Amino acid sequence: MTDASRITIHIVSSVDGIIAKQDNSVSWFETTDVYEKGVAGEDVDVAGFMKTIDCFVMGSRTYEHALELSRQYGWAYGDVPVVVVSARSLPVERHSVELYYGDLHTLVNDRIRPRYKNTWVAGGAELCKSFLRLKLADEIRISILPIILGKGLLFLDGLGLEQPLHLKNTTAYRNGMVELWYEIKK
Amino acid sequence: MTDASRITIHIVSSVDGIIAKQDNSVSWFETTDVYEKGVAGEDVDVAGFMKTIDCFVMGSRTYEHALELSRQYGWAYGDVPVVVVSARSLPVERHSVELYYGDLHTLVNDRIRPRYKNTWVAGGAELCKSFLRLKLADEIRISILPIILGKGLLFLDGLGLEQPLHLKNTTAYRNGMVELWYEIKK
Repeated sequence: MTDASRITIHIVSSVDGIIAKQDNSVSWFETTDVYEKGVAGEDVDVAGFMKTIDCFVMGSRTYEHALELSRQYGWAYGDVPVVVVSARSLPVERHSVELYYGDLHTLVNDRIRPRYKNTWVAGGAELCKSFLRLKLADEIRISILPIILGKGLLFLDGLGLEQPLHLKNTTAYRNGMVELWYEIKK
Repeated sequence: MTDASRITIHIVSSVDGIIAKQDNSVSWFETTDVYEKGVAGEDVDVAGFMKTIDCFVMGSRTYEHALELSRQYGWAYGDVPVVVVSARSLPVERHSVELYYGDLHTLVNDRIRPRYKNTWVAGGAELCKSFLRLKLADEIRISILPIILGKGLLFLDGLGLEQPLHLKNTTAYRNGMVELWYEIKK
């Protein structure tokens, strides 16, 4: 890996490490919490930040969920290239979306790293775990919302691999969300 | 609950929510990480902080583990009262240690709250979950170490209860540990 190409696993999680409720509902993303010391939403340049991401990689169910959400909220990834890792033939409605089925080393080293500087792996849990197991990611950013969900899909359950991290930054937001940003030690 | 008595669940966890390795080893508590912006260990008044805790509550296996560790590192809880919740008859080597077997509501409302201002529930996972399910705790503090363990005992696995939290504070330390401090919403 060179500094020219970074691959970041990003996940939004509850305090108990759950990234999806059993019914797939996302209303828990909207917290009712107020953390006075936190960075206010209006001070976060989301659009500017999104512009720094050159490529998203996601699994098939995450993609299907994003498609479903796009009917109500619009497509979350703009014109940024999205690679969907899937063995299934999924509907592709945008030029920016590309399906990929094959070896992840090949995807990352031959297709993503030469082309993109800043790639985000946006889920789901299985794809993120594959990236960790195959040592294909450089960073991991976990946004922890102020809620315990109690049941649902765990993010890193059953990874089976010990991986030391380096804390790179931490940011607390006004809505009670805390982002932990780690470098994955080589 | 009055301000006169707070019950805090405290846990040290990996990024993937694991609080104990399968072999119970604790060397992962000693991180090799350096987070330059974090609070340095020498600036943390551990002794002063420990003095603010009036009582510890723990489960039987956490107690047995603490006993085992005490042979090497000394008893971690000083002369502070420790209530061990257990149906088993465990060895008691200190005047400060008391065994309890019975209803947790009774323990908390009749014995702990009238007597102690600042009580910490120090684990394990099952006891912490019981405190959450029975709404007996006021706060939860999670110290997240910069490591993914990959397998071991999960902290909040199978809680089965949704619990909104209020972020109260967050502190990052020089060793890469981040403490998330939440109030448990009533």
